[in-house]
Amino acid sequence: MQHYTHHNNALNMSHLGQNVYLKGWAAKVRNLGGLIFIDLRDREGITQLVVKPGNPFYDLALIIRNEFVIEVKGVVIERESKNKVLATGDIEVDVRELVLLNSAETPPIMITDNTDALEDTRLKYRYLDLRRPVMQNYLIKRHEITQAIRQVLVEEGFLELETPILGKSTPEGARDYLVPSRLYPGSFYALPQSPQIYKQLFMVAGLERYFQIARCFRDEDLRADRQPEFTQVDIEASFVDMDDVQSIIEKIMVKTFKKVLNVDVQAPFIKMSYQEAMEKYGSDKPDMRYELLIQDYTAFFKSMELPLFQGKQVIRGLVFDQGQGVTRKRIEQYTEIVKKNHGDMLAYVRMQDGAVSGSIAKFLNEEHIKVLGLTEGAIMFFVAGEFERVSQALGALRIELATEFKLIDDRVHKFLWVVDWPLLEYSEEEKRFYAKHHPFTAPVDPEVLKHNPKEAMAKAYDLVLNGYEIGGGSIRIHNQEVQRLMFDTLGLSQEDIVNRFGFFVDALKYGTPPHGGLALGLDRVVMLMTKTTNIKDVVAFPKTQSAKDMMMQAPSDVDPIQLEELKIKVGE
Amino acid sequence: MQHYTHHNNALNMSHLGQNVYLKGWAAKVRNLGGLIFIDLRDREGITQLVVKPGNPFYDLALIIRNEFVIEVKGVVIERESKNKVLATGDIEVDVRELVLLNSAETPPIMITDNTDALEDTRLKYRYLDLRRPVMQNYLIKRHEITQAIRQVLVEEGFLELETPILGKSTPEGARDYLVPSRLYPGSFYALPQSPQIYKQLFMVAGLERYFQIARCFRDEDLRADRQPEFTQVDIEASFVDMDDVQSIIEKIMVKTFKKVLNVDVQAPFIKMSYQEAMEKYGSDKPDMRYELLIQDYTAFFKSMELPLFQGKQVIRGLVFDQGQGVTRKRIEQYTEIVKKNHGDMLAYVRMQDGAVSGSIAKFLNEEHIKVLGLTEGAIMFFVAGEFERVSQALGALRIELATEFKLIDDRVHKFLWVVDWPLLEYSEEEKRFYAKHHPFTAPVDPEVLKHNPKEAMAKAYDLVLNGYEIGGGSIRIHNQEVQRLMFDTLGLSQEDIVNRFGFFVDALKYGTPPHGGLALGLDRVVMLMTKTTNIKDVVAFPKTQSAKDMMMQAPSDVDPIQLEELKIKVGE
Repeated sequence: MQHYTHHNNALNMSHLGQNVYLKGWAAKVRNLGGLIFIDLRDREGITQLVVKPGNPFYDLALIIRNEFVIEVKGVVIERESKNKVLATGDIEVDVRELVLLNSAETPPIMITDNTDALEDTRLKYRYLDLRRPVMQNYLIKRHEITQAIRQVLVEEGFLELETPILGKSTPEGARDYLVPSRLYPGSFYALPQSPQIYKQLFMVAGLERYFQIARCFRDEDLRADRQPEFTQVDIEASFVDMDDVQSIIEKIMVKTFKKVLNVDVQAPFIKMSYQEAMEKYGSDKPDMRYELLIQDYTAFFKSMELPLFQGKQVIRGLVFDQGQGVTRKRIEQYTEIVKKNHGDMLAYVRMQDGAVSGSIAKFLNEEHIKVLGLTEGAIMFFVAGEFERVSQALGALRIELATEFKLIDDRVHKFLWVVDWPLLEYSEEEKRFYAKHHPFTAPVDPEVLKHNPKEAMAKAYDLVLNGYEIGGGSIRIHNQEVQRLMFDTLGLSQEDIVNRFGFFVDALKYGTPPHGGLALGLDRVVMLMTKTTNIKDVVAFPKTQSAKDMMMQAPSDVDPIQLEELKIKVGE
Repeated sequence: MQHYTHHNNALNMSHLGQNVYLKGWAAKVRNLGGLIFIDLRDREGITQLVVKPGNPFYDLALIIRNEFVIEVKGVVIERESKNKVLATGDIEVDVRELVLLNSAETPPIMITDNTDALEDTRLKYRYLDLRRPVMQNYLIKRHEITQAIRQVLVEEGFLELETPILGKSTPEGARDYLVPSRLYPGSFYALPQSPQIYKQLFMVAGLERYFQIARCFRDEDLRADRQPEFTQVDIEASFVDMDDVQSIIEKIMVKTFKKVLNVDVQAPFIKMSYQEAMEKYGSDKPDMRYELLIQDYTAFFKSMELPLFQGKQVIRGLVFDQGQGVTRKRIEQYTEIVKKNHGDMLAYVRMQDGAVSGSIAKFLNEEHIKVLGLTEGAIMFFVAGEFERVSQALGALRIELATEFKLIDDRVHKFLWVVDWPLLEYSEEEKRFYAKHHPFTAPVDPEVLKHNPKEAMAKAYDLVLNGYEIGGGSIRIHNQEVQRLMFDTLGLSQEDIVNRFGFFVDALKYGTPPHGGLALGLDRVVMLMTKTTNIKDVVAFPKTQSAKDMMMQAPSDVDPIQLEELKIKVGE
């Protein structure tokens, strides 16, 4: 290490004539008219080596193949034909000494940025997949992002503190991963879904400002952007209000984007109410990089007698100006998307070459068309029904259209705070309330929670970037009575409260300061900052969508003795 | 937060007359002749508040009790009677506005540095135990130590990378914690005992320099300084030799001690062979803060006919100069310690007031005494038997004497590298070899491992501080054939190798660079740097010796539905 003089992205014309000592992998070996050229690769880049006939190491150089590990001493010389793409493209190193550190069989995947290897193969040989420069860069960026975020938090007086991984099962929402206890057979630890309770206890303990780059676990059926374990930047502070927390997070984002990407992000970020986000974007995490807003047509259709819209609570829609190329087949596919996202059906009307057509065209006269403002080439889509469902359906269609027609400028980073959240969600089926965020979120007004829970608003805020929720937080309940009221409203029995949260409700009574915080989804932040769309790219050793580690073959059978010691049996 | 003007350790005579805005907990409330004094405490310290009769907030101040949470506005004034111990002892704050943020019941433990609360009570109310300033300081120091260590590693080009917690069970040594898989009933993940394999795979992947503040898990029966989960600073680098790794670690220690404790540590650290450590100190982690070296008396006793020592391989001993006060009862206790540490028995001879006595005195004449060098007041202790066992027994006695007679200067920090380790340990009972460190440690000479494994030496090094092993590392095997040889020597069947480490042996063949590293035990480092002797003091939410979380009551029962989903049953 310290004896090597340079990494492989360092040398240029200013080093001509210098003796250098390098190490790395043979990325490419060519034999051109007796000259052997080796591209020597390390984490930083590539330097070309040349071994000339007559060199005492020539025979050794002849046996070098791709991915052999070598170290060389040599002299920096100017290249005959320069490579303008490479930082070191003006020079090469005339080898004087060559040591073979390790040989390599032909790897099952190519060590190049582009690959056509199947994902399963890449995951099985993850240690080779990660050798590809593009993949190394994701992890290097992840490292840089983590350091940048941490630096802001440390400067702001936050203490980095660790919380247990072996915790207690308090299922609320997602499923816990369980760990059988050997010393207490029949009892289980649970892996934390988040350090929420611990971080609030740090506030009770008077530590005032805490953060942790924390591993969290959810045994859920995985979606493309989910992993069974994930990392969040977990943050909590005492004596703060919503603005305080938000401005710390903004500072983190501004400094991290500047430091890692050299991008200037504008703060403070826009704030938008949950209600407005649903109305205009049909989403609680709107992508603000493009318009295509949802509009309300309830009043317009009220007087008309469209059978499709009869008795519907609201009728809302989108106007898409670039509708020329949209085929009937695509519209059928849009309809599927609408249905998958809680919409009943998709109605539309369009104008092509002056002719009006579409599923509701026959109900519209010229005057209607004028009022609607339908123009040549445009399509207007409508969904009717209950507000939330209609909005979600149109929100999904909005994303589909934007993606398909490339309305998104992906050089842009649009941050947004979604605020003014309802505290609770009511499940008509189960006739009970659920916490919209979690049961520790403070109500804006505890009296409303008490007397009219459906109307209760939360001191909650989500951070959204380019249509992804990258953080969620709130001011927490710090008053024991309000916490009890919250649990009561959620239908927890006295016994449930005691068993699951007894120690926590207890803790609140010994002088708990007002406090609040936020958790940033680190994997997503890195994914968005590196502009990949696959969360697996930014996780060193990810699992498949069925929670399997293809490389290690985990989960796996274990020795029956291990199960005996735990006194557990496998079976139906 | 930003609206508060100062923390509670900030104000002094230079602030006289200033308007300030403070927050915190009432640490002490006194009513002296109508004046109400409140010690306002936060994470940083204490500021005295005074509320005078006639103050509009006087009645509110009257109800404030210990641990109430308040915020105040006021003016800094000079105190009448100053407190020289407190940083803010020259001033007090004349309260102009007082807000009660939360009340508090009387806590079950006193929020003071000294406590007589039982450990179980402290663990149950950990959030209050952590409110005690001395405990907060442990966690603040832990934070500072972590940041200092990380800073060196980042500056040295190490990437902070995360490895999975849901891994594969490959039991070798300690017991794994298992996590049942819901998607693959009967299969299990295991929590990592260390990220050893992952970090080596990072080297295979060409990431060159990695570190992680990593959580590790061992389901072992706990000793006082062990927790079921613990944290290690896990480090690995490619293209390094032993000296390279050691000098990075020395840089970490020097800078961390300077930054956090303002202590100058001398580097490079002393190096001592495992053999010498056992010979002189009877320990592979010798405490170098005091002498009391073990000496060999085998030759001396050879010609004599002591029945006790007949046929013993070695006879070794300690000379303790301050033996005057040592009673026979204590010597019996020392004998117990010796026996607990693999010694057969403890012999001794002493001189008090010119008279020689002790269990072997009758076998010694004046000439013997002279040769032994026994002096007035001294006791010589002897243990006979097999070298390792004798040395360990005397090593334990050495520590006992040093502790009892306060031979240890606890202001001193003595670092030491223990090097030149045997690669393997042979179990006579099981007739097999075990890896002295782990099966990935490189032999100094693979030929010796092949032909004479008992003599094989390892490229391993342990870092010892004040008698504690705080780090262990090695250069790793990077050659596939040597790795196979190692597994063979350890008696792993071909099937075992494939099932447990197949992917890893595979990985080695695609161009693995030479690499090595080390893991620092963070909990121990913090414990030693903060001079506490209880590892629980430096862990935010520790478990008891029976691996129980007293606060959360984990492990706990879980809902039968959870077990059904996992298809596991509890029972014999």
